[in-house]
Amino acid sequence: MIENLFELIKERKFAEARRALEDMNVVDVAEMFTEWAQKDDDEKQIVLAFRILPKEMSADVFSYLESDLQQKIVETISDKELGEILDELFMDDTVDFIEEMPANIVKRVIKVSSADDRKLINQLLMYPESSAGSLMTIEYMEVDNEWTVEYAIRKVRQQAQDKEIFVNMFVTDDRRHLVGILKLRDLLSSSDDEIVKNLIETDVISVCTHIEQEEVAEMFKKYDLVSMPVVDNEGRLVGIITIDDIVDVMEEETTEDIYKMAAMEPIEDSYMETGVFTLAKKRIVWLMVLMISATFTGMIIQNFDAVLTSNIILSSFIPMLMDTSGNAGSQASVSVIRGIVLGEIEFKNIFKVMWKEFRVSLVVGVGIALFDFIGVAIIYKDPLVAMVVGITIFCAIIAAKLVGCTLPIIATKLKLDPALMASPMITTIVDAVSLLVYFNVASYFLPLV
Amino acid sequence: MIENLFELIKERKFAEARRALEDMNVVDVAEMFTEWAQKDDDEKQIVLAFRILPKEMSADVFSYLESDLQQKIVETISDKELGEILDELFMDDTVDFIEEMPANIVKRVIKVSSADDRKLINQLLMYPESSAGSLMTIEYMEVDNEWTVEYAIRKVRQQAQDKEIFVNMFVTDDRRHLVGILKLRDLLSSSDDEIVKNLIETDVISVCTHIEQEEVAEMFKKYDLVSMPVVDNEGRLVGIITIDDIVDVMEEETTEDIYKMAAMEPIEDSYMETGVFTLAKKRIVWLMVLMISATFTGMIIQNFDAVLTSNIILSSFIPMLMDTSGNAGSQASVSVIRGIVLGEIEFKNIFKVMWKEFRVSLVVGVGIALFDFIGVAIIYKDPLVAMVVGITIFCAIIAAKLVGCTLPIIATKLKLDPALMASPMITTIVDAVSLLVYFNVASYFLPLV
Repeated sequence: MIENLFELIKERKFAEARRALEDMNVVDVAEMFTEWAQKDDDEKQIVLAFRILPKEMSADVFSYLESDLQQKIVETISDKELGEILDELFMDDTVDFIEEMPANIVKRVIKVSSADDRKLINQLLMYPESSAGSLMTIEYMEVDNEWTVEYAIRKVRQQAQDKEIFVNMFVTDDRRHLVGILKLRDLLSSSDDEIVKNLIETDVISVCTHIEQEEVAEMFKKYDLVSMPVVDNEGRLVGIITIDDIVDVMEEETTEDIYKMAAMEPIEDSYMETGVFTLAKKRIVWLMVLMISATFTGMIIQNFDAVLTSNIILSSFIPMLMDTSGNAGSQASVSVIRGIVLGEIEFKNIFKVMWKEFRVSLVVGVGIALFDFIGVAIIYKDPLVAMVVGITIFCAIIAAKLVGCTLPIIATKLKLDPALMASPMITTIVDAVSLLVYFNVASYFLPLV
Repeated sequence: MIENLFELIKERKFAEARRALEDMNVVDVAEMFTEWAQKDDDEKQIVLAFRILPKEMSADVFSYLESDLQQKIVETISDKELGEILDELFMDDTVDFIEEMPANIVKRVIKVSSADDRKLINQLLMYPESSAGSLMTIEYMEVDNEWTVEYAIRKVRQQAQDKEIFVNMFVTDDRRHLVGILKLRDLLSSSDDEIVKNLIETDVISVCTHIEQEEVAEMFKKYDLVSMPVVDNEGRLVGIITIDDIVDVMEEETTEDIYKMAAMEPIEDSYMETGVFTLAKKRIVWLMVLMISATFTGMIIQNFDAVLTSNIILSSFIPMLMDTSGNAGSQASVSVIRGIVLGEIEFKNIFKVMWKEFRVSLVVGVGIALFDFIGVAIIYKDPLVAMVVGITIFCAIIAAKLVGCTLPIIATKLKLDPALMASPMITTIVDAVSLLVYFNVASYFLPLV
């Protein structure tokens, strides 16, 4: 299908290609263009294909393209075509696009925009990235609380094509202050002469333009919202945020969390779009920090080299002890970090969580320790060493789970990101603990040569 | 505030309490009740508070409560009160509630429901958990493609209170087959005598009832949907899924991924609600598997005990080498796993990803190796050992990144969950690799005593 279309365009069978494109979903068209761009360096075909798109599709497709492809298209099309696309784009999509473009393209965009749009673009560009202001749509429907239902519905019908119409509308007074939320359902089901004021709910949840997008996403989740009004410092309505934008924010925030949990600084773009040196930079710092801390673990071994030289067999259990206690610790820390992110665990629950993890570690510890004791006793035929390994793993698992569950909670209290207390950090700490236990138990039970 | 309300109810100042409750958001009320239930075992106050809630709030608050609190409330209130709550609940919330209740409560719910509702409840209960069918709302607005705009708007206005009205409506033909999507905006902005058929878009993305919720969520993300129609095997419209339900699914799926990445089987309930033995069971299996694999790493050390006994100093670098290569590997694997989940990386990108990680590992490897070489040379004043450590860490980082990026991609090809190839699995493999390199390099450069 995709190959086919590419061929049609190459052979300049545009009418046929256009018919095929018309039936496709815009997201699929954008994906297809992206694939063409990856496979073939001949971008002329893509621009051709883009140009034969039905007008009502081209702006939509454009908004789904990666920025380098957007740039190539804009560099090829005329100012008139560019103007048509910009007319169709929502203002927040326009600003997202501008933010990624080089200066010459930004200039062209500004040139072909109307004076009003220019003002709006400049205003939106001023909001810090990843703030509520940069996330919001400004093409919302303004509803005055003195309107009648009949008038409001007429307005909605008039503006439905140009404004983002969502399940909720936000109502302002004569000084444009946000006063309440009007559910579309309540508007539609009321009689024509009812006044909007009487239909609104006044306990409306709103944010200021400067609030961080992560916080906005939290509020959407907590209150099960589908849209939210954004106000300026004086409480005047300036935009709305809809849930589809929040879904993207949630993905981004999750990616950030996951990166931090794996001891990386988060990247801004997608993995495939990020360069080698940026990736290396985001990774090497934590790798270095954790490596330096791991050398302390090494010093523990060095301190006990007499024990180790006397019983060189002990060294072969080091990887197993380190890995198992590290894994046990990261199981606890990851569970707790996720609980904190989901708003389920707070600092006040710290003792409840510790008590829970303590009991879990008893169950897991006994199981693993017995397994190890029997295993080592059978394979190495040395019950003393088996006992040392068993006791160590039991203590190490308890310590690992307690450290693993406590550190993320303490991090929240210190206003640090709990995700930083995930596996790698826990592993480093727990390694030291388990080796300390190991060599102390060993020097107690095993003979020095 | 919360304390205050609790006092008001204890002192039976109900009118005052009611006024305070009226002004609160339902989510906050539900949260407050939950906190009361945790702090105080005297549930009578909560049921009292629940009963004085304004009628239009109580069903909403009810739907946000944890199931044990729901159960306690239902056990106390009369059949009439229960009936009123059920009337207000959307059918999918009713079913979610029933699924968690013991048999005696289910019986009562069935008893107070109307015959029609009973049939619907039974029907919804039959869809497998976490399928599209169990996720959908059945109170949607049915629109026939032969209707005029005027008639459709009148219908919307009539049914707005009882049906889920969303930005899109789904249109059926006379045999109830799904034929297209009608945007509310297009309906509202069209002239009264237009026919619905002419306004719909026919490239509508729909799912069958039995499709897994994870797949549904993928489609929402890919196509930026806010709602989606659900059809039966014959293509008849049976329900709609809205994005607010998908947000919850996305959270669940992310939690599952994160648990798997930390070598745990996912839990069904939240962390705090899950029992100690269930948690232990979800963790011990993987811990055991990884422990057994780690013993192979131990055997490598055992094989080289001559090298180790001759140069016991080597043992103190084992934790650092293991941790650093483990971290380097998990950085790569987690980046790639996230890329796969976000649909950015597919099997066909495997060589591109490997080439990228190879270059990243060169940069990171040179940095870390130099740092280690200099550090060890200065601290231990032994350039030979410093060289062994430096060469090992360089090779180990390259191997770790390559293994870390390759395994998750191969997992997708084998239809395995890439998240299983995260840190713990990678660590275990990479440990073995780095120790093999270590001892081989060491036996080459260092004298045997």
